[in-house]
Amino acid sequence: MNLKKFIRDIPDFPKKGILFRDITPLLNNKKAFKYVIDTFAKTLKNKKIEYIVAAESRGFIFGGALSYKLGCGFIPVRKPGKLPYKTNRYTYDLEYGTDTLEIHQDAFTGQSKILILDDLLATGGTAQALIKLVESMSGKIVAVAFVIELTELGGRNKIENYPVISLIQY
Amino acid sequence: MNLKKFIRDIPDFPKKGILFRDITPLLNNKKAFKYVIDTFAKTLKNKKIEYIVAAESRGFIFGGALSYKLGCGFIPVRKPGKLPYKTNRYTYDLEYGTDTLEIHQDAFTGQSKILILDDLLATGGTAQALIKLVESMSGKIVAVAFVIELTELGGRNKIENYPVISLIQY
Repeated sequence: MNLKKFIRDIPDFPKKGILFRDITPLLNNKKAFKYVIDTFAKTLKNKKIEYIVAAESRGFIFGGALSYKLGCGFIPVRKPGKLPYKTNRYTYDLEYGTDTLEIHQDAFTGQSKILILDDLLATGGTAQALIKLVESMSGKIVAVAFVIELTELGGRNKIENYPVISLIQY
Repeated sequence: MNLKKFIRDIPDFPKKGILFRDITPLLNNKKAFKYVIDTFAKTLKNKKIEYIVAAESRGFIFGGALSYKLGCGFIPVRKPGKLPYKTNRYTYDLEYGTDTLEIHQDAFTGQSKILILDDLLATGGTAQALIKLVESMSGKIVAVAFVIELTELGGRNKIENYPVISLIQY
């Protein structure tokens, strides 16, 4: 299936000069959405994944569906103050300013086999933050998977120590 | 399955006097998460649902999984400025202040059969906002479903014109 047909280009969003790759037409199309989840599942089926870790908000959509399909647990990573129990946090640099993500301290036990999943690999900052959070708790990262990869931004180089999967490349 | 075993009570979150019902242990447990999705799917299987509409962020986890299971499209409803294309918006009152939610204008065509899904039915404000957004675009709401219902808050009364499903009641 040509998944690019279901990605809508939005110029100048969220700000001037950015070409935003909108995944809502893909989510909207039951066949395309199913194809994405089934393709991930096929690629990952022998990895014995115990948990999927994904960041809010778009990552939750794919993370929820793939957790169901693979029969594993789902672990949400959120912005500060959203998770109600004790958390570990990681702060990382953005183009302007910083961002912080949190994970529950009891989300998994050490050596658990974990898939990190997000909708988009751009500069790799969020993926790196997810990796740091998981490794700080001794999780074993089996793969890092994305629906879309913006290859020119070189995010893959930042996470080259891990198997990286992406379904659509620009 | 006794799903309440997988809900963690967090006193005084997000503020003093609130008893927060934490669903992360449920998401974390592959059997409990699967049971929730399968139970929704069983209840809704003859409804010919074409789209699930859910609000960020926790609603996305269940919405993604159930869309996959039912084989329907998924439509995200988000806070202002997050959806990149043309949106309709609805503003509603909170205890203090207001909140606004947006949906893409081209998310579905009139008369589409829609399930509204959220993790929690509390006062019903968010559910009402989702209903207003869907009906403003002539969607046909087949049911409104929740993982948890806080019955004392009476949210069900606000949406009594629709079939309401909840899996866990407090």
